[in-house]
Amino acid sequence: MKRRVVIIGSGNVATSIALTLKDKCELVQIYSRTLTNAKALAQHVGCEAIGDLKNLALDADVYIVSVKDDAITSVVDAVPDNGALWLHTSGSTPIDVFQNKRSRYGVLYPMQSFSKSHPANMSEVHIFIEGCDSETCKEIKAIASLMTKNVHEAASAEREKLHIAAVFACNFANHMFTLSSEVLDEAGLPFDAMLPLIKTTIAKLDNMTPQESQTGPAARGDMTIIEKHLKSLHGDKRKIYKLLSHSIMDRTK
Amino acid sequence: MKRRVVIIGSGNVATSIALTLKDKCELVQIYSRTLTNAKALAQHVGCEAIGDLKNLALDADVYIVSVKDDAITSVVDAVPDNGALWLHTSGSTPIDVFQNKRSRYGVLYPMQSFSKSHPANMSEVHIFIEGCDSETCKEIKAIASLMTKNVHEAASAEREKLHIAAVFACNFANHMFTLSSEVLDEAGLPFDAMLPLIKTTIAKLDNMTPQESQTGPAARGDMTIIEKHLKSLHGDKRKIYKLLSHSIMDRTK
Repeated sequence: MKRRVVIIGSGNVATSIALTLKDKCELVQIYSRTLTNAKALAQHVGCEAIGDLKNLALDADVYIVSVKDDAITSVVDAVPDNGALWLHTSGSTPIDVFQNKRSRYGVLYPMQSFSKSHPANMSEVHIFIEGCDSETCKEIKAIASLMTKNVHEAASAEREKLHIAAVFACNFANHMFTLSSEVLDEAGLPFDAMLPLIKTTIAKLDNMTPQESQTGPAARGDMTIIEKHLKSLHGDKRKIYKLLSHSIMDRTK
Repeated sequence: MKRRVVIIGSGNVATSIALTLKDKCELVQIYSRTLTNAKALAQHVGCEAIGDLKNLALDADVYIVSVKDDAITSVVDAVPDNGALWLHTSGSTPIDVFQNKRSRYGVLYPMQSFSKSHPANMSEVHIFIEGCDSETCKEIKAIASLMTKNVHEAASAEREKLHIAAVFACNFANHMFTLSSEVLDEAGLPFDAMLPLIKTTIAKLDNMTPQESQTGPAARGDMTIIEKHLKSLHGDKRKIYKLLSHSIMDRTK
């Protein structure tokens, strides 16, 4: 018997989970407060779309709440406890958002940067889980294992550290690429020129720590170049260049 | 008729260029002030090795000066103008290092961080060129095109922009990995857990701009999470988290 699963949310994480689970579970409903979005995803995975939590099917086995962090509580509060397993997928929301509101609950946090145009290959993603008790934990592990073999237990405090680390390694590193592309744009040069360099930087991480492989003007304390670069920068790029150069120099002293 | 080329230098860039050009040009000589190094590379590419600039063949078509930035001038001064095309390969040395000393000269700057442990595939590298006049520029373009199809013209001012862009895309992005690893260290978690995430972030760059592919709390304006993360950070990581989140939010408004 396949688990009957409801997906609450239609964003990037909800989409990746729905696409991964569609053949492994029976998807019952997709909810989004924007019905059009729910419909788009529901059509992809072949189930019902709803735009109002009043229409939520209460007889499913698992409810995966994959909405913005600050919307999780209002979703939980809008639906009565139906005895089913309720999960959220947030890195930074503690498990106790469900406390006293659900009898079986937990967290299923896929640590990956999801986007609709680049649906992640879930089978390579690391999923961090937490359950309200050991039996529930086992069930969450079973669900996560339908998606990937990389399943780890992690309490809420560890999950927050993971999320912060991912913001640095992924979102902030990517923002460095955005700033780089802006500098190149001003000179009429293509960002593509950076790709071989970026790939070399990443390749080094396979057998060196990022601290060991650091290069560039700040790492070698080349103030002449740093001052020259700061002169030709402005706005937040200038502030960022300065702050990060000092942060690198503090670690290479 | 193949161009007759002399390589002055035997470091990482000189080695990559020599290996790439060996079947496409007639390599005449490799010079290094350390004759053993010149011999090692010359043996690889099948040409003469010299350790003294007095023995430089003066009848070649092209001289590629690929030595440390502060040694370029002394090389140029040690050899008379022979009417051939003289090039240096430095990102941060202006073209005018040749002025009044050579009649035909320019820059051929391969944008890559070369290392012997991570040899670059030259055919994917972007090469930025500059020539003393438009005819010379055409000839430099032809030589660079023997190595890669990614050849761009860039004057000295643009080359500085390239360097700044590389600091953001490589050195600063890599520093984000360092900060990420520090956050994980505090929680006793291994940095390796980030590698799949980082590789996905980089893979997206093949067909999206970094701005388009940005995700995370700042990109979706999730102030609740941002404030929470800030509370658990301290020192320069806190300052950097704040500044970068604002920088991302300013661009996604």
